[in-house]
Amino acid sequence: MIQMRAIDGENFLNINDLSNETIHHLIELAEQFKHDQKTVRLKRPVYAANLFFENSTRTHSSFQMAEKRLGIELIGINPATSSVKKGESLGDTVKTLQAIGVDLTVIRHAQTGWYQQLRSDKNITLSLVNAGDGSGQHPSQTLLDLMTIHDEFDHFKGLKIGIIGDLAHSRVARSDAEILHRLGVELFFGGPREWYPADFDQFGTYRDIDEMIDQLDVVMLLRVQLERLNQNAVAAFTPIDYYHTYGLSEQRAAKMKPGAIIMHPAPVNRGVEIASSLVEAPQSRIFTQMRNGVFARMAILTTILNHRGLLEE
Amino acid sequence: MIQMRAIDGENFLNINDLSNETIHHLIELAEQFKHDQKTVRLKRPVYAANLFFENSTRTHSSFQMAEKRLGIELIGINPATSSVKKGESLGDTVKTLQAIGVDLTVIRHAQTGWYQQLRSDKNITLSLVNAGDGSGQHPSQTLLDLMTIHDEFDHFKGLKIGIIGDLAHSRVARSDAEILHRLGVELFFGGPREWYPADFDQFGTYRDIDEMIDQLDVVMLLRVQLERLNQNAVAAFTPIDYYHTYGLSEQRAAKMKPGAIIMHPAPVNRGVEIASSLVEAPQSRIFTQMRNGVFARMAILTTILNHRGLLEE
Amino acid sequence: MIQMRAIDGENFLNINDLSNETIHHLIELAEQFKHDQKTVRLKRPVYAANLFFENSTRTHSSFQMAEKRLGIELIGINPATSSVKKGESLGDTVKTLQAIGVDLTVIRHAQTGWYQQLRSDKNITLSLVNAGDGSGQHPSQTLLDLMTIHDEFDHFKGLKIGIIGDLAHSRVARSDAEILHRLGVELFFGGPREWYPADFDQFGTYRDIDEMIDQLDVVMLLRVQLERLNQNAVAAFTPIDYYHTYGLSEQRAAKMKPGAIIMHPAPVNRGVEIASSLVEAPQSRIFTQMRNGVFARMAILTTILNHRGLLEE
Repeated sequence: MIQMRAIDGENFLNINDLSNETIHHLIELAEQFKHDQKTVRLKRPVYAANLFFENSTRTHSSFQMAEKRLGIELIGINPATSSVKKGESLGDTVKTLQAIGVDLTVIRHAQTGWYQQLRSDKNITLSLVNAGDGSGQHPSQTLLDLMTIHDEFDHFKGLKIGIIGDLAHSRVARSDAEILHRLGVELFFGGPREWYPADFDQFGTYRDIDEMIDQLDVVMLLRVQLERLNQNAVAAFTPIDYYHTYGLSEQRAAKMKPGAIIMHPAPVNRGVEIASSLVEAPQSRIFTQMRNGVFARMAILTTILNHRGLLEE
Repeated sequence: MIQMRAIDGENFLNINDLSNETIHHLIELAEQFKHDQKTVRLKRPVYAANLFFENSTRTHSSFQMAEKRLGIELIGINPATSSVKKGESLGDTVKTLQAIGVDLTVIRHAQTGWYQQLRSDKNITLSLVNAGDGSGQHPSQTLLDLMTIHDEFDHFKGLKIGIIGDLAHSRVARSDAEILHRLGVELFFGGPREWYPADFDQFGTYRDIDEMIDQLDVVMLLRVQLERLNQNAVAAFTPIDYYHTYGLSEQRAAKMKPGAIIMHPAPVNRGVEIASSLVEAPQSRIFTQMRNGVFARMAILTTILNHRGLLEE
Repeated sequence: MIQMRAIDGENFLNINDLSNETIHHLIELAEQFKHDQKTVRLKRPVYAANLFFENSTRTHSSFQMAEKRLGIELIGINPATSSVKKGESLGDTVKTLQAIGVDLTVIRHAQTGWYQQLRSDKNITLSLVNAGDGSGQHPSQTLLDLMTIHDEFDHFKGLKIGIIGDLAHSRVARSDAEILHRLGVELFFGGPREWYPADFDQFGTYRDIDEMIDQLDVVMLLRVQLERLNQNAVAAFTPIDYYHTYGLSEQRAAKMKPGAIIMHPAPVNRGVEIASSLVEAPQSRIFTQMRNGVFARMAILTTILNHRGLLEE
């Protein structure tokens, strides 16, 4: 079965720690769930709790679907009305869930690296899954991005992928870039220069969108997250200017290579990062990414269940 | 099986579009669930999401119960903490649910006709159920009203029914009136004149409650919805005056025909639309309506599941 | 099977009304769930709704886990978005749930004795479980406290137990004290004098923590609930002073008898009622209490299901 060597075995927290082999195993498993209708059987009832301290439709409902398809029972906790309001620490909340018999918890939290302290606490034995940590990672999104590319092209090596947009504030851009680079992809970056972190030079090359659009196999657009920008940046931001300079318009899309695809983590700002008409165009994989997200998360959870000895052979 | 010809096959959005035959089929199916403990078997796991953008106990929990009794799995989404908060459109939220594998979604939304745009979007293939659209309809409530009347009298033709109260702001009054009229009921309307829409004359006759109370088979009271009135109307509203002039007091109830019943969509303003003592009186069907609501919704959902080919024969 | 004589048969509202025999039966049943992996089978699908009008992680998730382990289906209601917001009474909300087919409801509500009126309403036949009523009781917490002590020592008679802290504002102190006294425990009380209700003298003796710590079998600490104190009391409260005068420090814990245990209902204010290092120390049963809570609640619910004739023999 799949090894998750580079992380601590029963958790899924930081995807950059995973070896290429582990990533390939996870993708393969996700593709089995998608194409072969692979199913698993649990040895006993398994309980999960999803703690979303930040708003989410996509990730939250996708994890729920993955859990339900695996037959996992959900304990519903709404952080907005939980004891966290009485000042309880995240660690004590997690230990409470563990005490009542929860096997794994999926957490999105505004604190970058929320899991660091929990991971080093020897009294915490339930499994932790990172569904987004502050300005850190969003590792299940990175996995579904990788799976979507692999599912399309069946390989990574030699592909040309452009990641365009707010690279500085994206929770997935850095992980996607680091791992795609590691897997042999030729990477290009676009979007506003002031949103381009200098150290991304180690993964690829900054380019104007019009200079690269006709060479890319994947045009991966990032969401403009006004909620993560400071006031001055928000005031200075003009959607129509962004669209003209960095967005994927129909004109630009017409220059894409045959077989090239469009990706975006969503929710999409239609008419800002991308023309509304392209969101569901034949070359778009935006809703395919969401669909794949369920299978990617099933792969993550299955790997954890396997490590915990909860799967029937 | 049941045909839902007048609407687009796999949705349940506007009950006035349904033929008499379809309505009779739905009522019959609901009565089978109620009296014959009819059950259905699903061909594969079926997933639903209930999106209630407006407060609701009754309708939300009733749909949940109907879904659970049919063996449908629920993906829990709280619109208050969803990506709608990030400005995502209802259409994109619905497509997200579809992408992750949701088969049907039940939506209550403040926008009248929220489903119009979604219904004409060819990329939306999951089923849509209207649980209330702004000042539009509340079609599952109308169906349970019809079912409650039919379950009591076994026919519609020739019944005398009075609908009394805020006809202008009620989401069910117009549909109930149009369909009951179409089914051969003799309709009367009561309540404040300023809340009586002139075009209701096509369905029946406006009357003082005291002039009709002794002739009615069904006294259907509507909730005074102060939350839907403007400030002046709220300021001018005096509960005790409303009760004396339009409410169902014990004195008025005593004049009801033998066998006549009381209905109200609830929540009831006790002592405003109706004497508190009458809410659970023998002639009241108010809690029966709630009970029937589950069976009516099971009928709606079963019809959709059947159209989607998800039912075992 | 278990008799719940002192209360009205199918509800669980006030634990002080229960006979010693019934309490012993409930503890025994909880211990069977814990140690013998006892399971139950339901005659038909059973539906519950948990209505938490006040914040809770522990109790809410614990009841959920108990319900799921018993195979009970949950109808999700969020009081914050329910018709209670439209001014509906608790009684009418409960009757709505009953009408749609809910068999039992677990309620936490800010009103002390919220169940009094409901219990005397002959139209309410679904089962009511008290998960906390204002400044009244928290009977499932009391039961899990009793179970934790019994599970540790296998008896009550002759044990020396100290209950230390905010006795006046605790929802569990009075019930715990009354029943432990009744079961033959020798009780001591500690904490601020102004938080000591004079009539607790009938159950035991007020003592300085340092005068009793070396004699106690159980050191039961209560949470300082600043949210229940008035403004002056909050302003006057100094955590470090409380800790020094009344808290369980490492120095004090070192004086505990061999075999003595520490209890706390949680959430813990680490460094106020107890040294943080002691929360998960070997003599602490704080997380064991949470674990036992699930089994105690399974015992409560099973007893109710049995009374309703819903269990297979």
